[in-house]
Amino acid sequence: MQRILIFILSFALITTVNAQQHKSPNGNFELIFQLNKGIPTYRLSYKGKPIIKESKLGLEIKDMEPLTGNFMVADTKETTFDETWEPVWGETATIRNHYNELLVTLTQENTKRSMMIRFRVFDDGLGFRYEFPKQTDLNYFIVTDEKTEFAMAGDHTAWWLAGDYDTQEYDYTKSKLSEIPSKMENAIGPNASQTPISESAVQTSLMMKSDDGLYINLHEAALLKYSCMHLELDTDRMVFESTLTPDAVGNMAYMQTPAKTPWRTIIASENAGDILLSNITLNLNEPNAIEDVSWIEPVKYIGVWWEMITGKSDWAYNQSIGTVKLGQTDYSKYEASPRHAANTTKVKRYIDFAAEHGFDQVLVEGWNEGWEDWFGKSKDFVFDFITAYPDFDVVELREYAKSKGVRLMMHHETSGAIRNYERWMDQAYQFMVDNNYNSVKSGYVGDIIPRGEHHYGQWAINHYNYAVRKAADYKVMVNAHEAVRPTGLRRTWPNMIGNESARGTEYEAFGGNTPDHTTILPFTRLIGGPMDYTPGIFVMDMTKLNPNNNSRVRSTIARQLALYVTMYSPLQMAADLPEHYEMYMDAFQFIKDVAIDWQKSLVLEAEPGDFITYARKEKNGERWFVGRTNDEEKRTSNINFGFLTKGQDYIATVYSDAADASWEKNPAAYEIKKYVVNSKSDISINCASGGGYAISLVPVKDKKETKGLKKL
Amino acid sequence: MQRILIFILSFALITTVNAQQHKSPNGNFELIFQLNKGIPTYRLSYKGKPIIKESKLGLEIKDMEPLTGNFMVADTKETTFDETWEPVWGETATIRNHYNELLVTLTQENTKRSMMIRFRVFDDGLGFRYEFPKQTDLNYFIVTDEKTEFAMAGDHTAWWLAGDYDTQEYDYTKSKLSEIPSKMENAIGPNASQTPISESAVQTSLMMKSDDGLYINLHEAALLKYSCMHLELDTDRMVFESTLTPDAVGNMAYMQTPAKTPWRTIIASENAGDILLSNITLNLNEPNAIEDVSWIEPVKYIGVWWEMITGKSDWAYNQSIGTVKLGQTDYSKYEASPRHAANTTKVKRYIDFAAEHGFDQVLVEGWNEGWEDWFGKSKDFVFDFITAYPDFDVVELREYAKSKGVRLMMHHETSGAIRNYERWMDQAYQFMVDNNYNSVKSGYVGDIIPRGEHHYGQWAINHYNYAVRKAADYKVMVNAHEAVRPTGLRRTWPNMIGNESARGTEYEAFGGNTPDHTTILPFTRLIGGPMDYTPGIFVMDMTKLNPNNNSRVRSTIARQLALYVTMYSPLQMAADLPEHYEMYMDAFQFIKDVAIDWQKSLVLEAEPGDFITYARKEKNGERWFVGRTNDEEKRTSNINFGFLTKGQDYIATVYSDAADASWEKNPAAYEIKKYVVNSKSDISINCASGGGYAISLVPVKDKKETKGLKKL
Repeated sequence: MQRILIFILSFALITTVNAQQHKSPNGNFELIFQLNKGIPTYRLSYKGKPIIKESKLGLEIKDMEPLTGNFMVADTKETTFDETWEPVWGETATIRNHYNELLVTLTQENTKRSMMIRFRVFDDGLGFRYEFPKQTDLNYFIVTDEKTEFAMAGDHTAWWLAGDYDTQEYDYTKSKLSEIPSKMENAIGPNASQTPISESAVQTSLMMKSDDGLYINLHEAALLKYSCMHLELDTDRMVFESTLTPDAVGNMAYMQTPAKTPWRTIIASENAGDILLSNITLNLNEPNAIEDVSWIEPVKYIGVWWEMITGKSDWAYNQSIGTVKLGQTDYSKYEASPRHAANTTKVKRYIDFAAEHGFDQVLVEGWNEGWEDWFGKSKDFVFDFITAYPDFDVVELREYAKSKGVRLMMHHETSGAIRNYERWMDQAYQFMVDNNYNSVKSGYVGDIIPRGEHHYGQWAINHYNYAVRKAADYKVMVNAHEAVRPTGLRRTWPNMIGNESARGTEYEAFGGNTPDHTTILPFTRLIGGPMDYTPGIFVMDMTKLNPNNNSRVRSTIARQLALYVTMYSPLQMAADLPEHYEMYMDAFQFIKDVAIDWQKSLVLEAEPGDFITYARKEKNGERWFVGRTNDEEKRTSNINFGFLTKGQDYIATVYSDAADASWEKNPAAYEIKKYVVNSKSDISINCASGGGYAISLVPVKDKKETKGLKKL
Repeated sequence: MQRILIFILSFALITTVNAQQHKSPNGNFELIFQLNKGIPTYRLSYKGKPIIKESKLGLEIKDMEPLTGNFMVADTKETTFDETWEPVWGETATIRNHYNELLVTLTQENTKRSMMIRFRVFDDGLGFRYEFPKQTDLNYFIVTDEKTEFAMAGDHTAWWLAGDYDTQEYDYTKSKLSEIPSKMENAIGPNASQTPISESAVQTSLMMKSDDGLYINLHEAALLKYSCMHLELDTDRMVFESTLTPDAVGNMAYMQTPAKTPWRTIIASENAGDILLSNITLNLNEPNAIEDVSWIEPVKYIGVWWEMITGKSDWAYNQSIGTVKLGQTDYSKYEASPRHAANTTKVKRYIDFAAEHGFDQVLVEGWNEGWEDWFGKSKDFVFDFITAYPDFDVVELREYAKSKGVRLMMHHETSGAIRNYERWMDQAYQFMVDNNYNSVKSGYVGDIIPRGEHHYGQWAINHYNYAVRKAADYKVMVNAHEAVRPTGLRRTWPNMIGNESARGTEYEAFGGNTPDHTTILPFTRLIGGPMDYTPGIFVMDMTKLNPNNNSRVRSTIARQLALYVTMYSPLQMAADLPEHYEMYMDAFQFIKDVAIDWQKSLVLEAEPGDFITYARKEKNGERWFVGRTNDEEKRTSNINFGFLTKGQDYIATVYSDAADASWEKNPAAYEIKKYVVNSKSDISINCASGGGYAISLVPVKDKKETKGLKKL
C-alpha cells in the first residue's frame, strides 16, 4: 500500500512539472521547457517576442535507443547564481556571471536511462547543455547525431559561413535564411583543407537579425571532449538542427559518463551592441585552471610574416632542395635562397624595430627545417619544431633579442600532422623555454593526420586543448591558427591568447577580404574569443611587394588603425613591413600607443555588416581608445564622449579618412587631428568606403598640453 | 648524330637485358627476372624445380599511372655480398649474410618514372623489394594496392592463418591451397579486435609443402614505413597476390622518395629444418642501430599473470568501482578486492621465488589504475602508465627487488589507444628508469585508436617502431603483444626482445591451443622473430585455478619443458604459479637450467604440424639443450648426439613423457633419467600425444659425476 502511494505521488509530481517557465534575472528572457509526448522541447522569448519557437532536444547514440524521446521528467531544480570574476585579460576588468538555472532531469521510460538538460538564462540570453550522470546503463556511449533544434521565429537576415568540417576561412554571405541553399555554392571558396557539409549547413557563431529588429546569435561554449557543432537549416520549417563533425569512421563523439556536451548559446537583443558585449560564452566556461598566471601577458608584436604571405619572400630556405626528409636532408650543403626571409640579419632588423617602437615580440615564420615541401603531401614527419635553418642562429638571436628587451615569438606550423606535433611537443616547448620564447603561433594548415579526422572533430579538439594545457606546463602562451573556432575556453586556459579560425588579414593578400568583413567578425567569430587578425597594413597594393600579386587590401589606413580597437585581442600584431611603417610614422603612432588589455569596453555604434564603433579604456591607466570600422558605404559616424571621466579634459588624437579617401582609390589618405574633449563633447567623423577611424584619448595633466588645440 | 647513336646503344642494351638469370651462391636457387610486354615478372626455382612460376610485380598508386606496366629496363646491376655478423642475442652467435644481388632499374615509358626492384638470392631463398629513387615526378605517392604475385607451382599443403587486419591470434588450419576458401569460415574465431579480409586471404609467414616434398615459406622482412602484407589466393590460377592493410580512408601506404617497400621473402628447401634455420629475414634487415648494447640482455622471468589469465584473479583493483576516469576516480576510497593479484605482498612472494630460483625478472600486470573498464569501450585515456593502485607500492617493491637481485618487469597495456600511449610514453619510460625497470611488456588489446586504423596498418607500424626507438633512448627492452608480426627488425633494434603476434600459451586458458600448435609456430610465426610464448605450465586443468574455467592445456609437462628450446626467444617466462612449480621441483629444474642465448642451433628432426626437435648450445658455456615438441600423435624420436664435442662426455638429463602420459589423460606423467653420452651416442624417446621431451647436456668435468649412470 505504501508503495502504491509513493507511485501516485511521483506520478503527480511528474505531470505537474512537464511545462517549466523560467526567466532571466531581469525578466527579459523567458524559457519554457516542456515534454511533448515524451520529447523534450524548449522555447525562448525576449520581451514577449519569440526567438526560439518550440524546438526539440536530444541525441542519437550508437546501438542504443535514441535519447530523443520516451522521457519523463524525474526532477527539476531551479537555482540562481550571481558572481563577478576577473579575467586574466579581457575587454573588461570584471565580468558578471548572473543567471537563473533550470536543471531538468529526464528519465527514459523504457531504458531507465537518465539525461539532464541544464538551462542557464542570463540577462542577455540562454545557454543549455546535455548532461549524462554516471549510471548503470549509460557508461560509455557514442553520439551519432545531436538533434538539438533552434526553430527560428521568422525568415531572418543572416551573416553566415558555409558549414565545413575543416575550414572557417570562407567569406561571409548575407542573406535571408530561406536563401541559404541557393547561395551555398557561391559561399564555398577554395581552401587548403575543406569538407563542406551540405547546401543548408552553416557555421556558428551565426549572426541574425529579424524583420522586427531583433539581433540573435547562435553559438556554442566550452567545446571540449566533443565535436564542433554546425547548424543545418530545414528551410521548410525554418528550423536549425545541430550537426556535429564526424570522425574517421563517421561517429560524432565518444562519451564516458559523467559527461556533458558543450553549451548551446542564444544571445539576443534589440541593440546590436549588446551582442558584442555579451559575456555568455565566457561565463559558461569553467573558471581559470591555471594557478600561477603571472607569466600570461598580452602581447603586441611584429613579425617576419607579411612578406611571405604576399609572396615577396619565402618560408623555405631554398626551394630548389625539393622534397625534404628531416634528419636526412643536409641543409648545410645548400646556400640560403635570397628569398628566405627568416635569416639572422633580417630578424635582427625586426628586433631593432620592435625595440625602438615598444613592441613586445617578433614572430618569425620559416625559421625551421622542412618548409620546402610542407604542404599538401599528407606528410607525417613534416617538422620537428627544434631544428633551425642554417641561416637562423637561435642562440645569437636569443641573446640579441634579450639585449634589446624583446622576445621572439615561436612558430609551430604542424601542417595538420597532429601525431607528429604531439610527439615533438615536449621537446618543442622545452626548446622555447631554453631560448626565451614564451608564446607560440601554431598552425594546422592542410588536412588532418590521422587521416579521415577533421579540424573540428573530437580528435582534433582534444588535441588543441592538449596543446594548450601542455603549453601551460611550460608557461607558454598559445595562438593556434586553423584550429577550431573558440568557444570561450580562454576563461579556463588564459594562456590561449589567440586564435585565427576565420579569414584574417592574410586573405587581403590572397585576393582580399570584402570591405564589410571586419564589421561582421565581431558579431560572429569574436563571440567565441579573440582573433589574431593581424591588422595594421599600410601599403594596400600588393604589387608593391610582389609584382605577381594583384591583391589589394580593402581598407584605408585609418581603418587599419581602428581594427586594434574593434577586433578585440590580447595579441595584436602590426603586420606590415617596418619600411612601410616608416613611410607613415604619424599614423603608426596609434599602433604604438593603443592598449591591448582593457578596463572597460563600450559599443558606441554597431550594425552587422555595416559599421562598428567601440570605445575602450585601458586596464591600468586612464587612456581611452576609440575605433570605428566601416563597410563599403561612405558613412558619417556621430559619437559623443559621455564615457569619459566627468570634469577631466582629454587630448583626442583622431586618425580618420581624408575627404578623398577610399579603400579602392586612395587608402593612404588619412588625417590626424588633435582636439581637447571632455565627457560633454561629441564629434562627427566621415568614414570612407572601406574606411573608419581611430582615436586616442589621453587625460590632460598640464593645461599647456592643450595649447592651440580646438576644444570640441 | 651522336645523340642518335646513344639512343641506339641504349635500346640495344634494353632489349638484351630483358631476361635476367640470377643464381644463389650455391647455385641451388635460380631467379629469372623478365619484362613481359612491359610488365615486370619473376620466377624462382630450386634445384631446377619451379617454386614461383612467372609472377607479376608492381604497385598501384593513387591518382597516377599504376607502376605495374609500360616499363623498360633502364639498368641492371649484379653484385655479390658476403659478411658474417654477430647478433646481440640469438639462435647462433654469428650469422652469415651471403647473397647474389640483382638490382633492376625500370623506367615507365609514358611517365618517365623510375622504379627499382632489388633481388637478393641467398642459399636458402629469395628476398626482393621495390625501391623508388627520388625523382621529379615521383616524390610523394600513396600506395593503393601492391600487385606482387607469388604463383605457386602446385596445390601445396599449407599451414595458414586467416588474413586479418587486426589479429594473428587464430588457430592454424592445415589444408590444400585450393581448400582455403571453403575452410575460411571455420578458420576465423572470435577475437578482441578482428577484421577478416576475405575468403581467400591468409597471413604470412605462410608455410607450405609441395606434393614432391619441397618446403616453401612466404613472409616479409623489415616491415617499416609501410603496411603489413597478406596473401590473397586466386585459386583458379593458384597465385597469391599481396594485399596490404588499409588505413582509415582506405589507403595502404604513404611514401616519400627515396622510398622502399619491405622485402618479400621466399625460403625453400627439401629439408624442413632448413626453413627453421634460415636467416633470410634477419639478413634483409638493417644492421644494429643501437651503439651501446650493454644494457640489452636476455631475460628469464616469472610473473603475476597466469592467475589473471585463467580467471583465478583480477587485473582490476576493485571491479565494483565500475567505470574509471583517471585522475578523477579516487581509488584510495576503495578497498582492494581480494581478487586483485598485483599487490605488494603477493609481488614480494614472486620476487622471493624468482630470487631463489635464479630468474631475472618478475612481470606484474594489473599494477596500475584503470583496469576496471579498460577494454572494448574505445576509451582514449585508458591508462597513464605511471599511477599504481594503492596496494602496489612502487618504491617498496623497487627496493625489495633490488635487495634480492631481481628486477620487476613493467607492463604497459595500451588497450589499442595509441595516441594516449604516445602522450605518456616519455613519462612512462622515465618512471621505469626511476624505478629500476629495464623491460616492458606492452599490449595492444582491442581496436586501435585512432579509430579506423588497424593493428597492421602503416600508422600502427610506425607507432610500434616509435615505441621501440624511444625505449632505446631510455635503455628499455620491449616485448610488444598484439603488435604486428615481427619481420626481423630485432636485428636493427635488438632491444625489441619479444613479441606475441600469434596465439600464445594464454589461449590454453581460453579453450586451448591445438596439440600441434607448437609444431607449426616455428615454421610460421617464428620466421619473423622470437615469440613471448610464455610456456612452462605444469597444472593443465584450469578448473584447479578457476572452477569456472574448463580449459585444459593440450600438452604434457615434458613438452612444456621442451618449448624453452623449440620456441626460441631471448625472453622466456615460466608462466605457471610458484606453488605449481613447487609441486614438481624436479621437472622445474630444467626451466632453471635452460639457457636463453645460444652459440649454435641445430634442427634434429622437423615436420610442420607433426614434430620439431632442436639442439642448441648455450652462448657462453659448453652445455647443450635439446627440446622436442610433438603433435597429437604418439611418436618415437630417434636422435644422435653427433653435435657434441668429440671426445667429451656429457651428463644428459632427459625429461620425457612417461609411458602412460598424454596431454588429455595424464599430462603430469613424466620421467627424469640421467645418462652419460658423447658424440657417438644416440637415444630413442617415446613422445606422448601432445608430448615431447627436454634434455640438458652438461660436460662431465669429474669422472665421479658419472657414477652409477648408464652410458648410451
